[in-house]
Amino acid sequence: MEDVRIGDISAPGRLAEPEEAISLEELALAARNHGLPLEALRYDLTPAGLHYVLVHYDIPATDADTWQLTVRGLVETPLTLDMPTLRSYPARTQRVTMECAGNGRARLAPRPVSQPWLVEAVGTAEWTGVPLRTLLAEAGVAAGAVEAVFTGADHGVERGVEQDYQRSLPLPVATGEAPEVLVAYEMNGRPLPPQHGHPLRLVVPGWYGMAHVKWLRDIALTDTPFTGFQQEVAYRYRQSSDDPGEPVTRIAPRALMIPPGFPDFMSRTRVVRPGRVRLEGRAWSGHALVTGVEVSTDDGRTWNKTELAPPDGHDWAWRHWRASWTATPGLHELSVRAHDAEGHAQPLDQPWNRGGFANNLVQRVSVLCLAEPDGSG
Amino acid sequence: MEDVRIGDISAPGRLAEPEEAISLEELALAARNHGLPLEALRYDLTPAGLHYVLVHYDIPATDADTWQLTVRGLVETPLTLDMPTLRSYPARTQRVTMECAGNGRARLAPRPVSQPWLVEAVGTAEWTGVPLRTLLAEAGVAAGAVEAVFTGADHGVERGVEQDYQRSLPLPVATGEAPEVLVAYEMNGRPLPPQHGHPLRLVVPGWYGMAHVKWLRDIALTDTPFTGFQQEVAYRYRQSSDDPGEPVTRIAPRALMIPPGFPDFMSRTRVVRPGRVRLEGRAWSGHALVTGVEVSTDDGRTWNKTELAPPDGHDWAWRHWRASWTATPGLHELSVRAHDAEGHAQPLDQPWNRGGFANNLVQRVSVLCLAEPDGSG
Repeated sequence: MEDVRIGDISAPGRLAEPEEAISLEELALAARNHGLPLEALRYDLTPAGLHYVLVHYDIPATDADTWQLTVRGLVETPLTLDMPTLRSYPARTQRVTMECAGNGRARLAPRPVSQPWLVEAVGTAEWTGVPLRTLLAEAGVAAGAVEAVFTGADHGVERGVEQDYQRSLPLPVATGEAPEVLVAYEMNGRPLPPQHGHPLRLVVPGWYGMAHVKWLRDIALTDTPFTGFQQEVAYRYRQSSDDPGEPVTRIAPRALMIPPGFPDFMSRTRVVRPGRVRLEGRAWSGHALVTGVEVSTDDGRTWNKTELAPPDGHDWAWRHWRASWTATPGLHELSVRAHDAEGHAQPLDQPWNRGGFANNLVQRVSVLCLAEPDGSG
Repeated sequence: MEDVRIGDISAPGRLAEPEEAISLEELALAARNHGLPLEALRYDLTPAGLHYVLVHYDIPATDADTWQLTVRGLVETPLTLDMPTLRSYPARTQRVTMECAGNGRARLAPRPVSQPWLVEAVGTAEWTGVPLRTLLAEAGVAAGAVEAVFTGADHGVERGVEQDYQRSLPLPVATGEAPEVLVAYEMNGRPLPPQHGHPLRLVVPGWYGMAHVKWLRDIALTDTPFTGFQQEVAYRYRQSSDDPGEPVTRIAPRALMIPPGFPDFMSRTRVVRPGRVRLEGRAWSGHALVTGVEVSTDDGRTWNKTELAPPDGHDWAWRHWRASWTATPGLHELSVRAHDAEGHAQPLDQPWNRGGFANNLVQRVSVLCLAEPDGSG
């Protein structure tokens, strides 16, 4: 018997060296998981297959016909719920913009080595399910409960720790009204696709994706805060490896632009013709309503207000913005930035942390304005 | 007016330097496009969002209500067909395994710099539409026609050339019976998703993905072979940049394994427990039926036959295979290889070409067999 151990294949987190490019391991994650192609910002609701996906381990093989959700721990009446029972509760549908906490990581210097998102780990869907507080009210919250711990069916190893994916929410968040947390079984009016948690997932409007536990199979109320890997080791804002850090929770504001014109295949640089170019996109914040979006067409030297779509009652979903730009021949750098009603704004310098979380540095879009289709300027 | 030209943002194809790792440009393509997470080999039909996607430029904004397909050139009666008319023809449904011609590119040394696929650019769907030969018979093929040229609505720049995406098929292929080429409007029983060509695409069973023109808007019969970029510049097997090369057409055989056990998040190395482990996956070839799949559990030193599912009439779709392996503690390298009825087989050494096409080198899966969950060997 060889002397093997899990540390042989599962290394601690690390930062890339200053000149170190993307590794094949990071590329393998980028090939499995995927972002929103930015032109898909045109859809109010992101169609299936264009919404970002991050799966820590494997997409588990699940069966809605036999699926059971248990609600236990510090409750008065433990529950075991199958899908027909869950569907028999009054349903709620919420439009939610979801974003991976690691969005922007691959743009950081130094770069934390993990899923290498650039800016595209986002999507908006309508999620239908039972409010979590309905289920907790039915079970009855017992005295002393402080957190709800959610367990998914996905199993793997991370930084040497074998685990089921687990995250918790403080009880006031789990039972809150704004946002109202959902135990969701439909995405855009259809059963959840496998990669989005089929048949059941948590949806926590306004929070980064790590909170929306997929393939949800168990909810346990506890009298102490949860200290599992995804809560206490991963998903914290740390400046160094011995910094306990603060937990990652709500989504920082971000605006993205639909890249105008058409792209070069390899560089993704855009090409437009001289004249008026419509600029548009979406902006969101998990803290409060987005109240302003500004664009710059001169590499961040000057900024101009854009026109925001009026509030539509979907408080946890992105907001459409638009502006007009008169393009002149030459190479241009476009950027866009959002701020919200609580005063959070996108930074012009990278907000670095060791896990590479919430890097909402403004997006940059390179655009070549060409006078003629044949390529002469 | 600045002196700008398209070559400023669109460079010629190149090979990576020997030590050059994945660039941010390659990463941006990997974040947009995506492969099949290998555990999704478990599904006979790949669910929406898990099938591989490669989009050369942007996903165009299309509208099925106003979409028109023109059939013109060397035909007796030019046609302009809207979606209701296309749906009024007798429909055909075909199960087809589709693979990107660039699958395996990022494993090559030297690595052609382009979409950096590892092994996962594949998927299987049921495509429903009108046989192309039905439409060509209706239009009437005029004397002298030798090729059909297909134009999609996606527009961009590639290697300095501004273009709509266009590809051709020789007329005997376009009007052939095996495979029967489809003008498809449904994928797995639903309208095509935007990223798969909504509302209309070509499906050429057995051919690599570049032939299956998406967002299909025009078919033109010509009396000379098509010499457009995607036919004569890209998608050719070349050994050097001045080698005219041979065209990329049918899919070379490949077998893939569902990685057994569970993964480490970052390295994707698998973990299993000692004892019997079921190995299974899919195998396909665009030339002929897959007639054999072999696995190796000792890093390619010995190979064993696997059990193939009986032929099910879906001649253009992947075939399921399975085997059993008794895992013992230690680190193991698993591989799998397919061969087909015409004698094509997967190579054990990389089949290099300058575009990085059809690299069907055998897959390798690293598996750590651990005696105990706590990590001691």
